[in-house]
Amino acid sequence: MSGAEFQSIVGKFPVQLQWGDCDPAGIIFYPTYFRWFDAATWNFFAAIGYPASRMKAEHRAMPLVSAECQFLAPMEHQERGEVRSRIARWGGKSFAVTHEAVREDGTLLARGTETRVWGVYAAGPGTPLKGETIGGDLKALFKAR
Amino acid sequence: MSGAEFQSIVGKFPVQLQWGDCDPAGIIFYPTYFRWFDAATWNFFAAIGYPASRMKAEHRAMPLVSAECQFLAPMEHQERGEVRSRIARWGGKSFAVTHEAVREDGTLLARGTETRVWGVYAAGPGTPLKGETIGGDLKALFKAR
Amino acid sequence: MSGAEFQSIVGKFPVQLQWGDCDPAGIIFYPTYFRWFDAATWNFFAAIGYPASRMKAEHRAMPLVSAECQFLAPMEHQERGEVRSRIARWGGKSFAVTHEAVREDGTLLARGTETRVWGVYAAGPGTPLKGETIGGDLKALFKAR
Amino acid sequence: MSGAEFQSIVGKFPVQLQWGDCDPAGIIFYPTYFRWFDAATWNFFAAIGYPASRMKAEHRAMPLVSAECQFLAPMEHQERGEVRSRIARWGGKSFAVTHEAVREDGTLLARGTETRVWGVYAAGPGTPLKGETIGGDLKALFKAR
Repeated sequence: MSGAEFQSIVGKFPVQLQWGDCDPAGIIFYPTYFRWFDAATWNFFAAIGYPASRMKAEHRAMPLVSAECQFLAPMEHQERGEVRSRIARWGGKSFAVTHEAVREDGTLLARGTETRVWGVYAAGPGTPLKGETIGGDLKALFKAR
Repeated sequence: MSGAEFQSIVGKFPVQLQWGDCDPAGIIFYPTYFRWFDAATWNFFAAIGYPASRMKAEHRAMPLVSAECQFLAPMEHQERGEVRSRIARWGGKSFAVTHEAVREDGTLLARGTETRVWGVYAAGPGTPLKGETIGGDLKALFKAR
Repeated sequence: MSGAEFQSIVGKFPVQLQWGDCDPAGIIFYPTYFRWFDAATWNFFAAIGYPASRMKAEHRAMPLVSAECQFLAPMEHQERGEVRSRIARWGGKSFAVTHEAVREDGTLLARGTETRVWGVYAAGPGTPLKGETIGGDLKALFKAR
Repeated sequence: MSGAEFQSIVGKFPVQLQWGDCDPAGIIFYPTYFRWFDAATWNFFAAIGYPASRMKAEHRAMPLVSAECQFLAPMEHQERGEVRSRIARWGGKSFAVTHEAVREDGTLLARGTETRVWGVYAAGPGTPLKGETIGGDLKALFKAR
């Protein structure tokens, strides 16, 4: 990671906390945030030209290297908000996406990062995934203007 | 379905209700039973000679036609039990599995049925699934002696 | 259940199939439909005047008696659609909600029913749930005009 | 956190990867690890004298401050393993649990940490959670001999 952070566009993924996403304490069961982060990343890529159909056709996937999240305020049943996603950095074959879960009243609920590989199935579906060098064209699609 | 019910062996799949499987009422979130039924069916097939590795190698899957469940008593956090599964009937290319979720004190918590197709991917992974006629050899593996 | 079906308004709950809602066959993992049905019911009640906040304040819940679903067509990653919900019948203390999951191209993907009790915690949160007689005022809120 | 790491006993939570825990790439959907970590922590506390029933009776919960995980090797459908948990450190009102997910062939699949508050509902179920100072008696229960 170089000194300068990548100036990323912001993906927005709307969420609402459902009954089954809560735990007996009546608030969000924390792995729910990671489910949302994953979905937010896939939709972020869809928004810039890599919908699931293209990812599948090109035999691409984005396996995780690591993920982390800080939980700042509890979310309750049926509350709404959005996950705001940004590319935080580009590595050679990997990248980091930061996510902020924000309730519709503006409260920051959670903040996390996923580090993923830009991967291709070596020989089609079901075969091992290999990291692919991330080209400037992909990076350009996420660059804020 | 003929008049006589198939005399099936019984598969047993141990379960424990986790914090995240509960809802704000502090009891099991009902789709959890279906998650367990699905896992119980896959493990039932594994037990008679069709583990996931073989299913994958032979390009098989078992898509659902329908599923239903009756909920008889609530299950609470950290309680243990098992899902008892039986083949209820064999159709030409489909079959029905009945499941009973029983708490370790013997209480019947839920009872349900999955109807599934015995399927093969027509041309390998990712291609459309086709139902395959269920042979006597498969049925024999589930027959109680 | 009387002979005449209840003429219900229709609740609409938007859905999109996420990566983690799919199974290794690349299509929807079937318990996902039940998660959606549950969320659709809670949002249906919210729409007619019983949001989660009121349900909680009045110590209400809607435990399941039974649930069933028929799976008609597979749904794939990132596809969108909606769950259309109707009150199918009112019992004394229970009711049935039918749900149709429809892809945005109009394809009916799944159709199911939940039967639930209209329940109140006898002595506040965490205490046993008791069924409550469903009044005409509640039924009227769901009646199509 | 003092310089010396706490010498913790090791909790063991058996796991098996189910069909619905996998994604279309045929491997574990990563939030599954966090679901396992959460369940492993609850069972770790149960093993030393704080089962869910006691936690509930004493109005205790363990809300998350943060969670992170590194994913080292993919896990496949029906593979078995265990989550090995240790108390990594005790804070005043919080603590950290490290988890290692190990496949039954000994391969380390993932390694993560949860940081949690030792909390009590201020005024019973449904009321706000407050952190409670962690006493020496609780720490002693986790100390390796």
